[in-house]
Amino acid sequence: MYENIVVQNFNRADQEVIDGLAKCGVATVHEAQGRRGLLADYMRPIYEGASIAGSAITISGAAGDNWMMHVAIEQAQKGDILVFAPTSPSNFGFFGDLLATSAQSRGVVGLIIEGGVRDIRDLKKMNFPVWSKHIFAQGTIKETIGSVNITMVCATEIINAGDVIVADDDGVCVVRREEANAVLQEAQARVAREEKKRLLMSKGELGLDIYNMRQRLKEKGLKYV
Amino acid sequence: MYENIVVQNFNRADQEVIDGLAKCGVATVHEAQGRRGLLADYMRPIYEGASIAGSAITISGAAGDNWMMHVAIEQAQKGDILVFAPTSPSNFGFFGDLLATSAQSRGVVGLIIEGGVRDIRDLKKMNFPVWSKHIFAQGTIKETIGSVNITMVCATEIINAGDVIVADDDGVCVVRREEANAVLQEAQARVAREEKKRLLMSKGELGLDIYNMRQRLKEKGLKYV
Amino acid sequence: MYENIVVQNFNRADQEVIDGLAKCGVATVHEAQGRRGLLADYMRPIYEGASIAGSAITISGAAGDNWMMHVAIEQAQKGDILVFAPTSPSNFGFFGDLLATSAQSRGVVGLIIEGGVRDIRDLKKMNFPVWSKHIFAQGTIKETIGSVNITMVCATEIINAGDVIVADDDGVCVVRREEANAVLQEAQARVAREEKKRLLMSKGELGLDIYNMRQRLKEKGLKYV
Amino acid sequence: MYENIVVQNFNRADQEVIDGLAKCGVATVHEAQGRRGLLADYMRPIYEGASIAGSAITISGAAGDNWMMHVAIEQAQKGDILVFAPTSPSNFGFFGDLLATSAQSRGVVGLIIEGGVRDIRDLKKMNFPVWSKHIFAQGTIKETIGSVNITMVCATEIINAGDVIVADDDGVCVVRREEANAVLQEAQARVAREEKKRLLMSKGELGLDIYNMRQRLKEKGLKYV
Amino acid sequence: MYENIVVQNFNRADQEVIDGLAKCGVATVHEAQGRRGLLADYMRPIYEGASIAGSAITISGAAGDNWMMHVAIEQAQKGDILVFAPTSPSNFGFFGDLLATSAQSRGVVGLIIEGGVRDIRDLKKMNFPVWSKHIFAQGTIKETIGSVNITMVCATEIINAGDVIVADDDGVCVVRREEANAVLQEAQARVAREEKKRLLMSKGELGLDIYNMRQRLKEKGLKYV
Amino acid sequence: MYENIVVQNFNRADQEVIDGLAKCGVATVHEAQGRRGLLADYMRPIYEGASIAGSAITISGAAGDNWMMHVAIEQAQKGDILVFAPTSPSNFGFFGDLLATSAQSRGVVGLIIEGGVRDIRDLKKMNFPVWSKHIFAQGTIKETIGSVNITMVCATEIINAGDVIVADDDGVCVVRREEANAVLQEAQARVAREEKKRLLMSKGELGLDIYNMRQRLKEKGLKYV
Repeated sequence: MYENIVVQNFNRADQEVIDGLAKCGVATVHEAQGRRGLLADYMRPIYEGASIAGSAITISGAAGDNWMMHVAIEQAQKGDILVFAPTSPSNFGFFGDLLATSAQSRGVVGLIIEGGVRDIRDLKKMNFPVWSKHIFAQGTIKETIGSVNITMVCATEIINAGDVIVADDDGVCVVRREEANAVLQEAQARVAREEKKRLLMSKGELGLDIYNMRQRLKEKGLKYV
Repeated sequence: MYENIVVQNFNRADQEVIDGLAKCGVATVHEAQGRRGLLADYMRPIYEGASIAGSAITISGAAGDNWMMHVAIEQAQKGDILVFAPTSPSNFGFFGDLLATSAQSRGVVGLIIEGGVRDIRDLKKMNFPVWSKHIFAQGTIKETIGSVNITMVCATEIINAGDVIVADDDGVCVVRREEANAVLQEAQARVAREEKKRLLMSKGELGLDIYNMRQRLKEKGLKYV
Repeated sequence: MYENIVVQNFNRADQEVIDGLAKCGVATVHEAQGRRGLLADYMRPIYEGASIAGSAITISGAAGDNWMMHVAIEQAQKGDILVFAPTSPSNFGFFGDLLATSAQSRGVVGLIIEGGVRDIRDLKKMNFPVWSKHIFAQGTIKETIGSVNITMVCATEIINAGDVIVADDDGVCVVRREEANAVLQEAQARVAREEKKRLLMSKGELGLDIYNMRQRLKEKGLKYV
Repeated sequence: MYENIVVQNFNRADQEVIDGLAKCGVATVHEAQGRRGLLADYMRPIYEGASIAGSAITISGAAGDNWMMHVAIEQAQKGDILVFAPTSPSNFGFFGDLLATSAQSRGVVGLIIEGGVRDIRDLKKMNFPVWSKHIFAQGTIKETIGSVNITMVCATEIINAGDVIVADDDGVCVVRREEANAVLQEAQARVAREEKKRLLMSKGELGLDIYNMRQRLKEKGLKYV
Repeated sequence: MYENIVVQNFNRADQEVIDGLAKCGVATVHEAQGRRGLLADYMRPIYEGASIAGSAITISGAAGDNWMMHVAIEQAQKGDILVFAPTSPSNFGFFGDLLATSAQSRGVVGLIIEGGVRDIRDLKKMNFPVWSKHIFAQGTIKETIGSVNITMVCATEIINAGDVIVADDDGVCVVRREEANAVLQEAQARVAREEKKRLLMSKGELGLDIYNMRQRLKEKGLKYV
Repeated sequence: MYENIVVQNFNRADQEVIDGLAKCGVATVHEAQGRRGLLADYMRPIYEGASIAGSAITISGAAGDNWMMHVAIEQAQKGDILVFAPTSPSNFGFFGDLLATSAQSRGVVGLIIEGGVRDIRDLKKMNFPVWSKHIFAQGTIKETIGSVNITMVCATEIINAGDVIVADDDGVCVVRREEANAVLQEAQARVAREEKKRLLMSKGELGLDIYNMRQRLKEKGLKYV
């Protein structure tokens, strides 16, 4: 009734679209696609300042078992991001400097993991960014197989292989591959619109006036005393 | 029975008192006022190293609604700190780089928010410090009005408009406006007293002797074996 | 039936063994001793980049009471690490810059505390690393005695005076004093073994091949589609 | 600058108003006063089925110290509810069967505590309901004084002595004493209005029709497929 | 790019299959389908003893907004279970006795909600079971539309309209509609197998012998001392 | 360096001492032994009203692996309590009705588990009480061996085989076997002393007078206003 599989072929978004989304950042991309796609707020970067986007290699493995990481790395291409979710909650350190070395040599640009990670300092030195739920050195086993590039849930969001992952200091956002181009257009338009407002605001103009809020606030009953 | 209001006039502490409190820091100010005023320990800075004090602009808004931020910024003066608490728990990103630009242009020096914040990286670049409960990119709406500069609870403490907020890497502390001067006196005296002890301790003298603890420990029954 | 004691004499591991363990780091040491000894994942460093090892001075004190810190510092020798656990959960700031000055002047190299710590910024300036459960400025009292250098539990692990504590960005690990040398041998062997794998992986060779996993994955039923 | 006091005189709402509010229950009272006044959702009853209201005796005490409970009980009258908040977070068992016996003999009808409670089984047998943040047997001390019947924060809400506390299986709600009568009127009106809707709904009529929602849903863009 | 829709037609499993799954219970069903399908452990029943199964009506709504509940009830048939997940975390009381009356009159047998619920006592009296993440009386609004019967994530699991939901005191499990019959066969076989073991065990026979574990334990290195 | 063992022989406290401790209950026993021995407050009973004591059979197993449960049951005698702690955090359902049947047939009276449990409803019907950290149906494996009757940590406390475990609605407490008799004497004396106070308090006498607190409160500076 249920099989563990590795899906070897799937489509990716165009690299320039992916790069454009990385530049827009998580908050803007999330807004641009109708406020959807944010992973849970407990997904935090292991170090500050990284800002990436890439195509998702999805990895579903057992709690405390990182076997499928090795399987997944073979499936990755330059620019991909590994996305791992255990089938049950686990804070184990599923990933460390060795796996990062292997992934990086294949062109993988980062890891999103609803679990634990270790060798934090080495990962930082290697410029291999990770967004994780936990940091914990606990070692994992290689006993139970899972699946690679199936549709799965990671940190409250559905992720498909080839979906675009955007990650920065604000967290992680997923964009459906087939919507990536449209989201980028809207995100860039949004950046442009915000730039104008930023200029006005930096000169001291108030949002109350820029957005014409005063009348509506009054109608809602706000009183100045 | 209940109205949403914006209080436009309230008193602030003297700027030099405020600056003095900033210099003393959270731990010392908290001690100096009888170990009162600390906000909950989940209020953490979005980046390290910031250390500020300012007069509170209090903002009470609905969960997931940041409309009153705009109303509040108009009420702020140079050196003020925005203090936001939602009326129900919410991890949404109530505040980002645009609002920070607006607040900063008005002279606001920071934000304390029992909710979420986003555009972390930009806020750091702008030197606009935030102490928040959450970091989350989730966008907010502007549907429900709230109140500005009313007395409210933020992260377990009562905050009045004009109270002095002190915030650094240790967390956030509130000082009643009318007590600010007395607290500063005591805080500075405390700093001076600690300086002497620090000198002794740096030379290897023990707290056991500096504080004359040996006899009392013996009376309490402590045994050396 | 129960007495509070200060144990003044206990054995320590050789300093070179301790230094060797520090160099191997938490994740490797944890692996080398059969995946035992990790403290709970909520024990996090107050600043990044510190990496230490030392002999444990264990301190058991009441919730919200830091009296025994002073007693403990007198028992410490150059290279020791203070390990504090309250007898009931407490997020209070048991330790700050004054105690750090005193401890550092005695040669103490760090603190592990299943409680709160304050004066974060000063501790960082002093290069006095702390791994704690909480950061909170709340002041403690000196009313209740506890014990020093007894066997106790800190963050889920049993710690004896003289056990070796290893701590870095991955967390904290305890090594039994009498096993320290053997653990170091295994840890260093492990580092050497990993170095070879890292080299292969950096050249793009896959874990699937290095570890000969393909046949076993097939036997477990993994399907490539 | 700061004194610990026991306020002996304050006003209470009329008992029939209090009884009326108890009958309406937490959810209705919360709605009736504009969705204000709910204590945090971690305040849970130690047993199911209790439903009370009473005038608040507020108690502010140190973490792990229940001394002020005794002071407070003397101030209580028949029908009052004790409301305890520690000045710092604490899961200790501040209250058990002895204190409940004392409180009950004075006519106190329940306890609201942002801390721990113990002797759960006895309290249930005594019909003395408690809403608490924790259940924990840890014993407290009597070393530090606090205050009784001052304005304080409990579980995110400001509580004044004499405010009406309403508590049932849904949680805890506070009603300002001076608003209690008006809130009761609105609550009872709300109950009556809901009764009509309940009748319609029990017959299978849909909220979509009762509240005339179909047109507005269409305008918002909802599509049936 | 994104539309809010109500899917009106979807397939359900046979009622006798659904009833069979209810009888097997969550733990057995979860095992029978390869240990998949369990919702997160924070999904707890509001009262003990309920044990149900039904076809999922999925409801995706905004945080703090229960408008889509009304839309969903119209889509429900006798025996269905409402499954609600907010698009962002929210502890609000999305559902109470009025909605339960409406749902129950339509034949709905329960609610699964990754959010809050209120009127707990009434729901228990009505025999309307709910598994929720929170209990909180906070009122919701009806401002933002969502979708009904789309594929969504609830408490870490993907849920499709028409999937079978099984819920009891152990938690909640989802079974894909198209696998429901096969899962039931396996679950019933499992129950039969366990019944035999239960009989042996109730007579004192050990699992060590029933499962032939002694040799394998020895090979793994277990030592009896 | 590290072996997995099953310790087959250890001493137990006298059954009448154990029964006496059960009668005194967790809160009293904890007080009687100097406020030591309480397990963490997240250890909660799966149903209300059970109140037991017994000799600990300690079980240390891998996260998500319940193999050692079977090994442990063979070591148990009539009146024993199983105490399980995983070597790393895990919410899996390590124990259900089958294991309970086996344990109960051997005379085991309950389970303490810093992990998950399932088949809650059956366990309640069987009158087999469990105090656990989690309730979760997730199935476990039998791959990794652990140890039985070694000294270990469970929910913050050190537990030795043969220590007396006391558990009721207040939580769980451990008493060292060799102190059990003395603790019982003190606990019973305490119960007697409390009985007198309870009588006085039930007649309305205040703790302020029974404990002679008024003068000391005055000296500490408490002011009645």
